[in-house]
Amino acid sequence: MKEIRRDMITGDLVIYSSYRNKRPLDKVKIVGDFDSKEDEHSETCPFCRGNTEDIKEIKETINDESGQWVAMSVANKFPILDLSIKEIFGEHEVLIESYRHNASYYNMTEEEFKNTFALLKSRYKDLSKREGIEYVSVFKNSKRNAGASLMHPHSQIVSSNLLPPEIKKEIEVSDKYKIENGTNLYEALLEKEEKDKERVIYSGEYFLAFVPYATRYNGEVRVIEKDDLDPSQWTDEHIEELSYIFKNMFRNMEEYQGDIPFNILLHSKTVNKEIGKELRTHFHIVPRKYNFGGFELTTGLYVCGSDPKELAEYFRIKK
Amino acid sequence: MKEIRRDMITGDLVIYSSYRNKRPLDKVKIVGDFDSKEDEHSETCPFCRGNTEDIKEIKETINDESGQWVAMSVANKFPILDLSIKEIFGEHEVLIESYRHNASYYNMTEEEFKNTFALLKSRYKDLSKREGIEYVSVFKNSKRNAGASLMHPHSQIVSSNLLPPEIKKEIEVSDKYKIENGTNLYEALLEKEEKDKERVIYSGEYFLAFVPYATRYNGEVRVIEKDDLDPSQWTDEHIEELSYIFKNMFRNMEEYQGDIPFNILLHSKTVNKEIGKELRTHFHIVPRKYNFGGFELTTGLYVCGSDPKELAEYFRIKK
Repeated sequence: MKEIRRDMITGDLVIYSSYRNKRPLDKVKIVGDFDSKEDEHSETCPFCRGNTEDIKEIKETINDESGQWVAMSVANKFPILDLSIKEIFGEHEVLIESYRHNASYYNMTEEEFKNTFALLKSRYKDLSKREGIEYVSVFKNSKRNAGASLMHPHSQIVSSNLLPPEIKKEIEVSDKYKIENGTNLYEALLEKEEKDKERVIYSGEYFLAFVPYATRYNGEVRVIEKDDLDPSQWTDEHIEELSYIFKNMFRNMEEYQGDIPFNILLHSKTVNKEIGKELRTHFHIVPRKYNFGGFELTTGLYVCGSDPKELAEYFRIKK
Repeated sequence: MKEIRRDMITGDLVIYSSYRNKRPLDKVKIVGDFDSKEDEHSETCPFCRGNTEDIKEIKETINDESGQWVAMSVANKFPILDLSIKEIFGEHEVLIESYRHNASYYNMTEEEFKNTFALLKSRYKDLSKREGIEYVSVFKNSKRNAGASLMHPHSQIVSSNLLPPEIKKEIEVSDKYKIENGTNLYEALLEKEEKDKERVIYSGEYFLAFVPYATRYNGEVRVIEKDDLDPSQWTDEHIEELSYIFKNMFRNMEEYQGDIPFNILLHSKTVNKEIGKELRTHFHIVPRKYNFGGFELTTGLYVCGSDPKELAEYFRIKK
């Protein structure tokens, strides 16, 4: 089986080639990465409780009943963007998602996810308010192969005066869909996936988690918000449902494919919402077990060897 | 220092942030990859001399005086594209670049490079002739982190009835440059780099090798053809100069950064040459030591921490 599919959200062209995963591989050592058998506390980790001398500036904390932080946002010591020049500027914070050094999305409790999403909402709201900011990016790198430089679980938030090209692309795709079909792309997608059912992982009151029909990254999962809210507008109920989905979906993913490296990309509207009215808040959950080869780099075409229906079956959350 | 630059050839936006490379890293095991201490011959490698039972179809060979092959093109056993469906089709061959199992661009002789480029030229010419083919992609994956599944040195060639999105992008960028400036983008680039000198690795009669002012991949090198020929039109002199450049440039690269994984992407005109008249044949040499993190994935903005001038000094070929 070989066919060409288009990712509805990004516009990427994907070649589905069902037997590509059967290629022989030379024996190599397993890709080195962080040791999952680390302790709950590390003396040398700058994100562990007590090791605050390395923290430049604490922006916000969520504390437990005893007053100790359980999630904390700090200024990034090595920011991609800062406020020093006018040409390109923004702020860069690190959201520490747990006090536990060896926590990860594969083992975090629902409570830890709730703290994470509550902190994300608050920091998103705060960074959106700075003058001249056009867009606020939230993303997570988990493990070295996904670009993480530290093991302690964290997300990152980067505001910018520039609309990122990847968001611009998604805006163009959804605007074009509206012009051609008269309806919102995300509403159409939600309707189709709920009807087809076979790619759905979980359909809640506020979010739909599913394995898309076509994605650039083999095994990518998306979580689309059913309302038209940005993260600063999430209610406690939104955060609770998200936490439930992430907790259970990651457990199922680990069972099927192990605790592989991944990125989480949160896409939402521009700050002023004047352009990109058709875009809806959504997460890309991107597995990073394998790297793209030269074919993907040189063509901008992506090759996928796994069946979304089959993956959805493994990842599905049984109510 | 922080500034935003645009890649002249691809249009990519790159944030130059000179101190990003100073971030702390948790200790991890070295990323596993092929063992460079392998023998010249492997009993189990399907690309080694004598192990032909795994070869589906030999397309072309270059032989030495004793009649043994020194470079060989074979049908890919697991093709990304084949001729089975009309929607998307093409051919996929593997160019075995040396009979030596443990050869690589870091240790190949000029003679081995000449065989490789001569075979590339011939296969490019042949695959271009098939009816309905719009574009012929040539690329190389070296080591697992760059997407290689086998260690034995090889490139790949994939023809397609579809113009790849990445080539379409480069065509649009060069067409736009012509409209706005009245001159050819590649000629303007060649002129500027030869005048500035500081980013030049080697300027020959037929090719310029240099570290561009801005690139998506940290440390990417480009080799631009000075003539307006496609690979099927290369003369022996073109092939000799290319071999000299690749041999010496890779030796310098290895001295500076070790034998890291890399991709080579050869970009050239469409087969019928009706569109993309402003594009010129060029190579992207893409180091794959580090992976992109979530920031690059979510924004489509790229962060670079190394100075092209400094890299060019290390990679420069002294005549």
